[in-house]
Amino acid sequence: MPDWFETPFPNMTPLIVIPDSAGITDVPGFEAAAVASDIRQKNDPKRLDLTLVYSLRPCTAAGTFTINAVKAAPVLLCQKHLAEGGPFHGFIANSGNANACTGAEGLRDANLMAQRAAASLNQKPTAFFVCSTGRIGQPLPMDRILKGLERAVTEKGRTPAHGQKAANAILTSDTKAKTVTVSFVYDGKKHTVAGFAKGAGMIQPNMATMLAFLATDFSVPRSFLQKTLSEAVGGTFNCITVDGDMSTNDTVLILANGHSGVSVGDKSPRELRALFAEAVWKACEVLADKIVSDGEKITKVIEVKVLGAASAEDAQKVARAIGNSLLVKSSWFGEDPNWGRLADAAGYSGAKLIEAKMDIRYNDVPAMVAGKPQPDLKSKWKEVVKNRRFTVTIDLHLGKAAYRLLATDLTDSYVNFNKSE
Amino acid sequence: MPDWFETPFPNMTPLIVIPDSAGITDVPGFEAAAVASDIRQKNDPKRLDLTLVYSLRPCTAAGTFTINAVKAAPVLLCQKHLAEGGPFHGFIANSGNANACTGAEGLRDANLMAQRAAASLNQKPTAFFVCSTGRIGQPLPMDRILKGLERAVTEKGRTPAHGQKAANAILTSDTKAKTVTVSFVYDGKKHTVAGFAKGAGMIQPNMATMLAFLATDFSVPRSFLQKTLSEAVGGTFNCITVDGDMSTNDTVLILANGHSGVSVGDKSPRELRALFAEAVWKACEVLADKIVSDGEKITKVIEVKVLGAASAEDAQKVARAIGNSLLVKSSWFGEDPNWGRLADAAGYSGAKLIEAKMDIRYNDVPAMVAGKPQPDLKSKWKEVVKNRRFTVTIDLHLGKAAYRLLATDLTDSYVNFNKSE
Repeated sequence: MPDWFETPFPNMTPLIVIPDSAGITDVPGFEAAAVASDIRQKNDPKRLDLTLVYSLRPCTAAGTFTINAVKAAPVLLCQKHLAEGGPFHGFIANSGNANACTGAEGLRDANLMAQRAAASLNQKPTAFFVCSTGRIGQPLPMDRILKGLERAVTEKGRTPAHGQKAANAILTSDTKAKTVTVSFVYDGKKHTVAGFAKGAGMIQPNMATMLAFLATDFSVPRSFLQKTLSEAVGGTFNCITVDGDMSTNDTVLILANGHSGVSVGDKSPRELRALFAEAVWKACEVLADKIVSDGEKITKVIEVKVLGAASAEDAQKVARAIGNSLLVKSSWFGEDPNWGRLADAAGYSGAKLIEAKMDIRYNDVPAMVAGKPQPDLKSKWKEVVKNRRFTVTIDLHLGKAAYRLLATDLTDSYVNFNKSE
Repeated sequence: MPDWFETPFPNMTPLIVIPDSAGITDVPGFEAAAVASDIRQKNDPKRLDLTLVYSLRPCTAAGTFTINAVKAAPVLLCQKHLAEGGPFHGFIANSGNANACTGAEGLRDANLMAQRAAASLNQKPTAFFVCSTGRIGQPLPMDRILKGLERAVTEKGRTPAHGQKAANAILTSDTKAKTVTVSFVYDGKKHTVAGFAKGAGMIQPNMATMLAFLATDFSVPRSFLQKTLSEAVGGTFNCITVDGDMSTNDTVLILANGHSGVSVGDKSPRELRALFAEAVWKACEVLADKIVSDGEKITKVIEVKVLGAASAEDAQKVARAIGNSLLVKSSWFGEDPNWGRLADAAGYSGAKLIEAKMDIRYNDVPAMVAGKPQPDLKSKWKEVVKNRRFTVTIDLHLGKAAYRLLATDLTDSYVNFNKSE
């Protein structure tokens, strides 16, 4: 697992990173559409809830998926289509219903979505991925979805408005759309990696996260694309937590349509490979950060850095124990620099730890040094935790392994927001 | 780990179980005292915060302690004294300060408490245990504690009022004292196991919990006492969660003073051994239940039963994932029978699980059967989750292992209560 906070790409190149861009339609050759189908059946006919993304050119693809043993039907479909190897032409994604815990019927519905899109666009069903997000355990209203899909096929286009609408239609409890466009020039030619994501609750991804869709105009062989995506996801989407709950639907997909006429793969020049990997990583990083920053009813984003761990696994254990502790998260909400709760969570994380060696810092202000409290600095920590964004560092002084987790506070509003759906 | 819900003692005997009893002073030969020392230094001179329990007869003892790698000074002291083997004469316990993350100074303070009690009562320092609970990372106000201890030595006694005061003085965020007395007659003679406990937040014990103190008038060899206590703790205190946070101070102690003149040990008649084990187990069970029921700002207690798991470890993983999921706990608070969140948590627990085999029930009402939702019964689940106490059962149908976890909901008030200390 790479260390996110020590990016493997030390400013080698001036990437142009545009957050809140049009997203996927910034990649030449990709079209998008979004329609309102009232999938939630809440008489809300204006709420966009169905996205179609289409590439006229055939694409290679890569994906990472939830490791939850309970996988939603669309996740199973994506994994099956990906294994068949393509070529791929796009995906359909809906919000308002997760199509999870829906048994054989759910799988039939997911397949039907791919088949209908394929039939309308003269492609094979396996050329399409399907993603769903929303409430678990309810059947999809297929009549509404299939009608919506017909409209989406008609309305698709490549303008920024099309891209932005597509990013909006997959949102659930998110308060804003999450898009990014990363581009760079190589050998006189501009290349792009762009995409969009959703996610605000049920966020502690592992092997993948929520829904995120990326595209590039490179031509990229399947295995190289998968390797590049997996590394980027491991260091970005997998290093965030809002509530410690890993979803049944987490999916990250990337499509490469080769529109630029340039290939990138294992045999490309080292510089080009690094540029492409950095662009994918950066796109994932921006989207992952947007997901945490838009976490359900949060008021703070806290970077939990663990240094000096005996192993990478230990570093991650400590970071996750802290980032998911109800008591730690509640005290962050209260702007109470209750470092004792951090020490407690580190202690029960299961990581090797010697209290008398451990440091705890708020930004650069020590609260504990080699196991000794630093009460004289209390007024300074209190200042740090008032910020909307700050860093807590746990240095175990036992080895060289490190981990960075982007976490949030826990608010009374989160609990009330999630009392019922 | 024994299954709590299939107690190893199937009503073999009529134990007399009295919750909300006087507690430890119900055991002949034990004296108690509690004084107000304003340990929190909040100008609160009436708040009881220092307990002394004393046995004139020498006792054997057993204990279980937090497995948190960050252990409070008094936990380290208890472990050391226990290892030295006794004889023991009692313990001192304070609330208002955990004496955790306090370095060498903290250990010196804990030792001083034992020394002072020993000197006043003409015993050795190693005859006393010391326990602390409260905020982490602050030095103990030793002047106040030592003065309080002097008064406690003078005021100790064996009336029910002494026992009840002792149980009150260890409380922190608890709303009520937690006591129990279990007795039975064997061979014409009455025997007693009684004690008290505290705990409401930072509750997900492992190997021990919060503070709980038990005593018996049997004479019990050290190793038999430890075995009996460990089994009972494994099936009671270790099977509860309020917020998933394991404390630095969790301690369960039992003292056996032999006042009844009857011994129980490996060579005792089978019936007597079973009676004693059942009495210890029952005392722990009642106190553990009291701790969950008094969880910080909770409104509901939920029994999470996992059946049919491939292994005991898997059963426990599923129960803990569900019992500690923020989304599950929030929906319980909202009386929303959101069983999809239970399936999601079971799925990410790491346990072996096949969705198409899994059942989920609210009390006896199925929400999912063999992976298939049962939407027709929705109105019935809704009734179940309105209760203050109910059971959710996850049957994995993969094996014979089972686990029972007693969990709580999560409320907006919990978050606000823990925003600052």
